[in-house]
Amino acid sequence: MTGFVSFVGSGPGDPELLTLKAVDRLGRADAILFDDLSAGPILSHAREGADLVGVGKRAGRASPKQDHVSRLLVDYAKTGARVVRLKSGDGGVFGRLEEETTALKDADIPFEIIPGVPAACAAAAAAGIPLTRRLTARRLQFVTGHDIAGQLPEDLNLAALADPLATTVVYMGRRTFAKLAGLLTGAGLPPDTPALLAEGVSTPDQVLVRSTVAGLVAQFAQGEPSKAPALILYGPLADG
Amino acid sequence: MTGFVSFVGSGPGDPELLTLKAVDRLGRADAILFDDLSAGPILSHAREGADLVGVGKRAGRASPKQDHVSRLLVDYAKTGARVVRLKSGDGGVFGRLEEETTALKDADIPFEIIPGVPAACAAAAAAGIPLTRRLTARRLQFVTGHDIAGQLPEDLNLAALADPLATTVVYMGRRTFAKLAGLLTGAGLPPDTPALLAEGVSTPDQVLVRSTVAGLVAQFAQGEPSKAPALILYGPLADG
Repeated sequence: MTGFVSFVGSGPGDPELLTLKAVDRLGRADAILFDDLSAGPILSHAREGADLVGVGKRAGRASPKQDHVSRLLVDYAKTGARVVRLKSGDGGVFGRLEEETTALKDADIPFEIIPGVPAACAAAAAAGIPLTRRLTARRLQFVTGHDIAGQLPEDLNLAALADPLATTVVYMGRRTFAKLAGLLTGAGLPPDTPALLAEGVSTPDQVLVRSTVAGLVAQFAQGEPSKAPALILYGPLADG
Repeated sequence: MTGFVSFVGSGPGDPELLTLKAVDRLGRADAILFDDLSAGPILSHAREGADLVGVGKRAGRASPKQDHVSRLLVDYAKTGARVVRLKSGDGGVFGRLEEETTALKDADIPFEIIPGVPAACAAAAAAGIPLTRRLTARRLQFVTGHDIAGQLPEDLNLAALADPLATTVVYMGRRTFAKLAGLLTGAGLPPDTPALLAEGVSTPDQVLVRSTVAGLVAQFAQGEPSKAPALILYGPLADG
């Protein structure tokens, strides 16, 4: 008796940014495994009686429980259950998807991946700006601001990241942004490069701050760090 | 009498990959302006009597009619209409969104941007692979393979694009891929770097080809060029 797992990208948080396919899978699931980031009103699409299982990953921290999540997925599926594994945004973008798909393959459990709206796309849409622009932003890149130990990764490609002709989106990068910004400006990125801080994108707690790379560094040095998941965009952003 | 324009990312093509918000806006629109890429079954969500206006942009070619589209948008909105401007994938990713939002701002017409599932996310999901991986693919980048004249852009950042530790997605890049691949391998990217060709992602015509950078170049040199919109992914892609 083999179940089936649907990895479902839940989008950035607004339940209206779920896809029709995601809603369908949520409504038919026997069990839904969700992170903190993708929970809340999205789970209202679950059918009555479905198991709702929080697996407690949090923004900006590597989960110590990745193996545990993979084992839960396998165990649920082995009971014959239809399982939904919710991933915030698009599961393929900094969602640690592979650890879980590998566990399912090893256990011969079939699965599908349903893409979702990445948080970066929702952040730009909310700010009224495009992520790419003719001539000035023909390259768009996504990076993570922390490695498995919570530090800024060592092997950054600064020629890529300090390119003033790209739009860059830093996921989970607030805590390490001052260090990153120092490397970027050292590599030639102007400190007055436009930047956008986007917290809690598409949720009632959404905060958008238009600034510059240097301006965000100054702001982070002062303020209480917010706990909301945040993205930082920089590059030749439109005026909005 | 001022209308309202919703820029709606329609996702990659599968109407089930529309968001709930996109479906809502389609169902309430007086007029829907669509490109060839985002049409078909997606338009079944339009209400009876809505104007469905094809504006005829095609894959891999810059539209000569961008000004015309912007003018149409403004003219429809000025009649007081609720207008949906459908953009395939996510409108902020190579969707020429800014030309149209600028025209609306100039005419004092309010608008919103509803993000969608980018084709790149859907391609990776269909192939069963993540776009990012711990350690080996911590950077994800999207580029376009053609400029306004249909040529490979001149000002490519090869240090960024030939990085073997990034996943790269080339939009509209089939016709220029041989030239790009030559530049990439000249800059140090191994010719046997894994690559994926994804055509007609999420549609009944979907074709996925797992190969290498050199393998795709060889294939494109032989085959009849397909007319379906295509993405090329390369980098440390998972085995799928």
